Amino acid sequence: MRILVLGGDGYLGWPTALHFSARDHEVAVVDNFARRRWHRERATDSLTPIASLSDRIDAWREVSGREIVAHIGDATDARFLNRVIAEFLPEAVVHYAEQASGPYSMISREHAVETQVNNVVGTLNLLFALREHVPACHLVKLGTMGEYGTPNIDIEEGYIEIEHRGRRDVLPFPKLPGSIYHLSKVHDSHNIHFACRTWGLRATDLNQGVVYGVETEETALDDRLVTRFDYDELFGTALNRFCLQAVIGHPLTVYGSGTQIRSFLNVRDTLQCVELAALNPAELGEFRVFNQFTEQFSILELAELVQRAGDALGYAVELDRYVNPRVEAEHHYYNAVNDKLLGLGLKPRYLGEELVQSMLTIIARHSHRVITHAIEPSVRWRPDDADSLQRDAPLRESLIRSQSPQRSRAGVPAPNA
Amino acid sequence: MRILVLGGDGYLGWPTALHFSARDHEVAVVDNFARRRWHRERATDSLTPIASLSDRIDAWREVSGREIVAHIGDATDARFLNRVIAEFLPEAVVHYAEQASGPYSMISREHAVETQVNNVVGTLNLLFALREHVPACHLVKLGTMGEYGTPNIDIEEGYIEIEHRGRRDVLPFPKLPGSIYHLSKVHDSHNIHFACRTWGLRATDLNQGVVYGVETEETALDDRLVTRFDYDELFGTALNRFCLQAVIGHPLTVYGSGTQIRSFLNVRDTLQCVELAALNPAELGEFRVFNQFTEQFSILELAELVQRAGDALGYAVELDRYVNPRVEAEHHYYNAVNDKLLGLGLKPRYLGEELVQSMLTIIARHSHRVITHAIEPSVRWRPDDADSLQRDAPLRESLIRSQSPQRSRAGVPAPNA
Repeated sequence: MRILVLGGDGYLGWPTALHFSARDHEVAVVDNFARRRWHRERATDSLTPIASLSDRIDAWREVSGREIVAHIGDATDARFLNRVIAEFLPEAVVHYAEQASGPYSMISREHAVETQVNNVVGTLNLLFALREHVPACHLVKLGTMGEYGTPNIDIEEGYIEIEHRGRRDVLPFPKLPGSIYHLSKVHDSHNIHFACRTWGLRATDLNQGVVYGVETEETALDDRLVTRFDYDELFGTALNRFCLQAVIGHPLTVYGSGTQIRSFLNVRDTLQCVELAALNPAELGEFRVFNQFTEQFSILELAELVQRAGDALGYAVELDRYVNPRVEAEHHYYNAVNDKLLGLGLKPRYLGEELVQSMLTIIARHSHRVITHAIEPSVRWRPDDADSLQRDAPLRESLIRSQSPQRSRAGVPAPNA
Repeated sequence: MRILVLGGDGYLGWPTALHFSARDHEVAVVDNFARRRWHRERATDSLTPIASLSDRIDAWREVSGREIVAHIGDATDARFLNRVIAEFLPEAVVHYAEQASGPYSMISREHAVETQVNNVVGTLNLLFALREHVPACHLVKLGTMGEYGTPNIDIEEGYIEIEHRGRRDVLPFPKLPGSIYHLSKVHDSHNIHFACRTWGLRATDLNQGVVYGVETEETALDDRLVTRFDYDELFGTALNRFCLQAVIGHPLTVYGSGTQIRSFLNVRDTLQCVELAALNPAELGEFRVFNQFTEQFSILELAELVQRAGDALGYAVELDRYVNPRVEAEHHYYNAVNDKLLGLGLKPRYLGEELVQSMLTIIARHSHRVITHAIEPSVRWRPDDADSLQRDAPLRESLIRSQSPQRSRAGVPAPNA
């Protein structure tokens, strides 16, 4: 299959390109290096030393004998995107090419507008390019479970049957997104749904949980194939951040009570899910929605898991509770459905201490590269929280500070210790 | 009250500014003259000869002794909008400053992107400006009933209580918008809801039906106070278009079967509704949604009403059925709730033959100004319909062509004839 990966230089985009290439698909990638630029601007970086895209592609050719073609440009540049689509004529497009950080989108008005314009216009351009050049192409779009928020009912996969005053319909599941970034994904979903209903395009919206993990089958083959690993407050995701903090002796940054529940999956399962979606495309005119995750945890459960795994490896892991910089419910019902990908054959890799330990071990290899200035949360969802957050004292409230590290470790059975 | 009207030079914005000014509110308007520009670009124009904004404001001062302040600029220009908000410190902002045409948004990719960027960025800029300068200001935002589409259940006002697998929640009503423009309003609604939930702003989203009418109490006071009246395929709305077509002897352009049902209201009732919303503001942190219309009709009912009213005045009105340039259900359930504005005291002016006759009479006064080249539909929701639409013959299928105008007129009792 001819597969175009938008955002193919990213944390998920690059392993996705390798995954499809390794399975004999014809792969091209598009990237504008925005994520690298955003890191340079903030003097942060990937933990893992990532090669340039052209060096990665050379390495992959050496290792696998396979070719990945790169197109450097921006999805918001319609002429560029049109040309790529018209020349490559993809049968599937996997679309990761978006600003994907909630905190980044909440820094300022400029960041909010940049996020929504980048994501919405890039996706609109793509829809028009598909309509013009390859109307039967299957769009595999990365959305997020964060589009749903935390409703008091089960979260279905994109649609819900509603019975109301004696009548029924199956309608889009209501969305309560939690940041300007999450809003941009809701906008995309509505736009793509419209393109399917109106133009007969076909798409699968993958509402993905929080991804964790460092390596995939292909990135582990050569040091130059490694994918990026972000741990800063903007681009680091919960479990990845906690693992890094455990390794460098930084208290785990638990926001609020930590009782917020979210859905999660291993980066290797992202690849499985995207492949399952691509190999089993939506029908023409269909806007299909999959909830793409394997498990649900509270943030505190994750932190405690990292603590146990770290203890087993001899790290003294503390948990610190921070005044929540986000505006989100901390005590809420959460139960999301994820039947569709399981129905297509997804075999989940469940999270456990062993997996966390292997992440800690990989992270430790790169710990000399850690940049510490951007680990603590500074971006606040409510600007009037600024004052309280700048004073450090009332912010952190150590969950276990009264305990010595020894007692803390002893308090938790650590199988490998 | 200090009221800022964004889009204050428009069809509804100008009469809204006059309405509040006449009632002793302190009124300022913002406009970038985009609607005038879009008409110049397409060599179309308002039927009514509208004065420049400064001449209008001068006329209003002469007629009423009252002052309206104008700020010329673009809501997508954050620095400009911030300055206006910071200086005027409005207690309410009525936000009409959007590209408001479905067909315009469907012309091309460029028009789609222009529409969504203009509307989404303008509204985001406004939300940030309010947050910074006047967080207690009440945002009265014009949405559209077209955000809902035509679900098979009753359309509630913004939210719906859903019972699902033994649990309940009140969630945003699912949206199925029918054009790129309607999508932009859905995006706005989600963004504004977020700003209310997260920053504690307050807003009322007025999901407005199709507005008809030429005059309001204040615009009728002086020729220079007249508001614009659009009848072209892009900016003309159903009833207004039909009335003009009746006067100039153009067959009424009924799209498809005409059995599509929509909600409608008189322009004078728009002013009533906006005033009721402003005088009864949402609570801090509340995102309130009102469905703003007074009646529901099928397109064919409207056309037949215009035909009867026209016949009574001696116009031979024909109905022509056009292959529907839009993608929309033509046979569907439609029942929308509009309790909230009625509960606040809205006194509807219902549509009838007499009102249509008065519209026809006003239109006739300006009929020498009609530009006919943009009356027939040319913008197609599905580009592959292009060929069939360019051939005229199979497109129009006269509904009453076998009848002579006399027989047609005679067949309908015309009370005033």
